[in-house]
Amino acid sequence: MALCIAVDAMGGDNAPNAVIQGAISALESADDPLQILLFGPTDRVQPLLDEAGVSSDLPLKLVDAPDVIEMTDSPAAAVKKKRESSIHLGLGAHKKGDADAFISAGNTGAVMATSMFTLGRISGVERPSIAGYFPTLRGFSIVVDIGTNVDCRPEHLVQFARMASVYTQHVLGTENPSVGLLNIGEEPGKGNEQVKAAFDLLGEAEDINFKGNVEGSDLLDYAADIIVCDGFVGNILLKFGESMTTVLKKMTAQEMERQQLPPEDQQVVAGVLSEVSKGFDADHRGGAPLLGVDGNVMIGHGRSNADAIEQMIHATADLVRSNVVNELKDAFGE
Amino acid sequence: MALCIAVDAMGGDNAPNAVIQGAISALESADDPLQILLFGPTDRVQPLLDEAGVSSDLPLKLVDAPDVIEMTDSPAAAVKKKRESSIHLGLGAHKKGDADAFISAGNTGAVMATSMFTLGRISGVERPSIAGYFPTLRGFSIVVDIGTNVDCRPEHLVQFARMASVYTQHVLGTENPSVGLLNIGEEPGKGNEQVKAAFDLLGEAEDINFKGNVEGSDLLDYAADIIVCDGFVGNILLKFGESMTTVLKKMTAQEMERQQLPPEDQQVVAGVLSEVSKGFDADHRGGAPLLGVDGNVMIGHGRSNADAIEQMIHATADLVRSNVVNELKDAFGE
Repeated sequence: MALCIAVDAMGGDNAPNAVIQGAISALESADDPLQILLFGPTDRVQPLLDEAGVSSDLPLKLVDAPDVIEMTDSPAAAVKKKRESSIHLGLGAHKKGDADAFISAGNTGAVMATSMFTLGRISGVERPSIAGYFPTLRGFSIVVDIGTNVDCRPEHLVQFARMASVYTQHVLGTENPSVGLLNIGEEPGKGNEQVKAAFDLLGEAEDINFKGNVEGSDLLDYAADIIVCDGFVGNILLKFGESMTTVLKKMTAQEMERQQLPPEDQQVVAGVLSEVSKGFDADHRGGAPLLGVDGNVMIGHGRSNADAIEQMIHATADLVRSNVVNELKDAFGE
Repeated sequence: MALCIAVDAMGGDNAPNAVIQGAISALESADDPLQILLFGPTDRVQPLLDEAGVSSDLPLKLVDAPDVIEMTDSPAAAVKKKRESSIHLGLGAHKKGDADAFISAGNTGAVMATSMFTLGRISGVERPSIAGYFPTLRGFSIVVDIGTNVDCRPEHLVQFARMASVYTQHVLGTENPSVGLLNIGEEPGKGNEQVKAAFDLLGEAEDINFKGNVEGSDLLDYAADIIVCDGFVGNILLKFGESMTTVLKKMTAQEMERQQLPPEDQQVVAGVLSEVSKGFDADHRGGAPLLGVDGNVMIGHGRSNADAIEQMIHATADLVRSNVVNELKDAFGE
């Protein structure tokens, strides 16, 4: 049977166009049978589908969701008041079993809150968490949490590590993934009260391959498969990392101007730099999994373009096939 | 009268050689009269001074400090047990008025603890703090705290902002410097409990030019003259930032190899990149001021080379001349 993904047509800065394009591309490029349920206001989305000339053979169905949750809506208000939104109805379809997963590049807080409300938490998980991809010299490290939980107790960091370990092993295929605790020094005993306590708890957790503290300077050098931190630190780091390539391009342009480099040399420099930058481009990863809710939810960057949406849909299909929710339930002893 | 700086000869990974070289260079390049008291074990330092062929005209005097505080010593143990160390005796000379300032690239925790013990805090300052230089597209932002205080109450962040404002205005000459609060979103009400409370307090402080929240993605673009955060976040960010250029060089080398770029093109790329990287090089700044103790203390990077030590000595002379300790006392109502 074809795998079915519920997609929030209204999520992200470039919605609905980028989402529609990404969904169509994903269906066209899928290796395995795939269906998409697209949630959004029919009066806004249907004309765009017509315009895109979507063939009636394509397994894409629009479901009317008249309420629109804006990026500026508070999560609490969104959950309570906009019950006919693409986020509510898409998650509802997943809950009912009409879809195997839900994805959105929209208001992260609203997706998170509505996921908790609609799907519930996996028993034993206190704080569902979004894991992100952090670019390094040797592929990506998974950073968890990236902004969902900004006030954390040490036990929460341990739960983040456990969830990310299950995800990294079963979805990304890394055997026994290593976990580093983000800290201000490598030695045990370093850090604030939160991480000092988390260090001890992580060391005691037999199902976590804890390799100790990692510092800010280790991150880009692939310090560990998984980097654990609270969502305040993780969000700042991730955004800082994402800004690096833009700034680098500006600084390089300034310097080439200063050196009065001939155009052909400028092209050489730009050709090298744009390839290096690609590794740091958030769009190339598609989305970030929301771990710990009782379902498959993937959250995209607000800036997601059609490519990113397409990638996210394929990554979500992998997530569903890996059966990660059941693996998480096992890990948390449900 | 010549300004006199007490220098820890044993501080840093490259001590004592780099410190000696840096001190000699600083004396040679100083525009205004300068004296240096060098603190370290005579049996180790004097032979190196002899080797360097230091002229007897040079206003450099070695003071014997037989105890050596290692980078691995705990600050508490260092303060209590190694009373004949270069850090103790150098700060003691500053306290007595034999020197106008003390600098070290050694064990930061030990310098901090011994400074508190020897010089005391400025009345009203709860937590002295080290401010760091963070590279941006348009010069440096001052980040405070960069690792001294890892568990902070909101009021501490306000004190950091106040101290950094005085420093930036009186030492760096920036009129009415702007202060940004590092956070996970720009809107008021964002963040963890600590920064939410700090946001309100900063807004109420009439002597602080608070411009609101800044995000991780804003940092490299010069979000504000001063960025306030707790030392846990600040330390991780600063180390991450410092690692950027090393990683970038490696990635660029990999990519040029992959593209099989001819040597002359590789040189063009390297020529642009090395200039861009210089802005991110911590060594080019010399040192970071310890603000809030009743004296002039500058702390260098553990990796400091002779150049960095020389820069730090000149920056310390500026610090003394700016009379920043008295300005801080005024700001804290002493």
